[in-house]
Amino acid sequence: MKRVALWVMYEGTQFSGYQVQPGKRTVQREIEAALATLHKGESIRVHSSGRTDTHVHARGQVLHFDTPLQIPLDKWPKAMNACLPDDVRIMEATHVSDDFHSRYHAVKKEYHYRVLLSKQPDVWRRNTTFHYPYSFDLERMKEAVPLLIGTHDFSSFCASNTAVKDKVRTLYEISVELEQDELVFRLVGNGFLYNMVRIIVGTLLDIGGGKGEPSELSTILQAQDRTLAGKTAPGNGLFLWKVTYETPIFSEEY
Amino acid sequence: MKRVALWVMYEGTQFSGYQVQPGKRTVQREIEAALATLHKGESIRVHSSGRTDTHVHARGQVLHFDTPLQIPLDKWPKAMNACLPDDVRIMEATHVSDDFHSRYHAVKKEYHYRVLLSKQPDVWRRNTTFHYPYSFDLERMKEAVPLLIGTHDFSSFCASNTAVKDKVRTLYEISVELEQDELVFRLVGNGFLYNMVRIIVGTLLDIGGGKGEPSELSTILQAQDRTLAGKTAPGNGLFLWKVTYETPIFSEEY
Repeated sequence: MKRVALWVMYEGTQFSGYQVQPGKRTVQREIEAALATLHKGESIRVHSSGRTDTHVHARGQVLHFDTPLQIPLDKWPKAMNACLPDDVRIMEATHVSDDFHSRYHAVKKEYHYRVLLSKQPDVWRRNTTFHYPYSFDLERMKEAVPLLIGTHDFSSFCASNTAVKDKVRTLYEISVELEQDELVFRLVGNGFLYNMVRIIVGTLLDIGGGKGEPSELSTILQAQDRTLAGKTAPGNGLFLWKVTYETPIFSEEY
Repeated sequence: MKRVALWVMYEGTQFSGYQVQPGKRTVQREIEAALATLHKGESIRVHSSGRTDTHVHARGQVLHFDTPLQIPLDKWPKAMNACLPDDVRIMEATHVSDDFHSRYHAVKKEYHYRVLLSKQPDVWRRNTTFHYPYSFDLERMKEAVPLLIGTHDFSSFCASNTAVKDKVRTLYEISVELEQDELVFRLVGNGFLYNMVRIIVGTLLDIGGGKGEPSELSTILQAQDRTLAGKTAPGNGLFLWKVTYETPIFSEEY
């Protein structure tokens, strides 16, 4: 048996998220179906760096699985992509040690969130941006974001219907930049709570729009109270961008 | 009654082309359904600058229709977009004279065709480019394209199952440029035959790939024989980019 790690991209629009759910089209289901085909019907369980929600995209999802097959590494993407629908693509495969785990060994995760500012909705980016045609003050957002950096209990920025008890996470980097007609948020942390990026973005858009002062972001964080933060921004603007391990496992393109 | 012209964008992926066909989801059907809603059920016929095929996109489709409604021009896009699915958007509305016709008065049409050259298929551009991961010589294509400019019988570049008799068209401009990992073809003419852009692109890709000399493009053109030209490139790389009238009817953004 060999343990193989995969770099996977997907457009989340037509998926009910990553994780297998009965009767739903999910990324995991499509990938396990492709692996079952390659393994002549034997079912192969894949493990991911974490789940993603409905409509959420991945540029850099990482999965691993164990296989008895002796397929050369460079053939894995082609073989799997031939069995996969075109909204999910295997970009690269690599051998990892038998104790590698895509989720437990991840040391950093990076998410991006794209907000489209144009007045008119955009036919081409409707699935990959959150359309937000309202005015805001970018400087207010830039003033607020550093307040989230560091190790905190992020309960205020976690969906209330979550089972996770320990809500302490470390946010290493957060930025917001104007790129042509888009506002792009980038967040790097050791892990993220359920809906955390989307609630942070929703709250920052509120602050940019004049609802509360930038400094109030600290108050919201310290209160550990979800009701004080803003709305959860929609899933279609969110990208799981990159998962970092102690030692890089893929090529430089990853 | 007022005649209104619309600037329309759509992503063709989930449409069976522009023109109404029984039982199919088409752009015209969606737009006429939106107009019927705004006209309290009265059916309103729209006329386009021309049809587009299944999976073909439009950045600059132009339609016109007659209406008894007194809606201010800047309200038309919003009112219609509220009734339309998000893969078709009305960008602008303008009043035109009672004898304006979006098809008969068009003096120039511009099409773009995007070819994605990356080795791996791309999740994000799978619907808006033709994936062509093969090697070719761009200089050979650039040498060939000027041979098509001018007024010719383009029978060799027209789908054989077409009813149109007069196959003489004037091609004013044609170019092919490398833009990062895409090859972009731009064609401007007084009109285009059925599948003409897609057959020209298919033929140029053959020439770029070493199948025949650039100069043979003239031979193919003069033969007026569809069987001598290349394959019809797929619809998903094609964009109806712009329709030009004697006098511009939309804002500068068009």
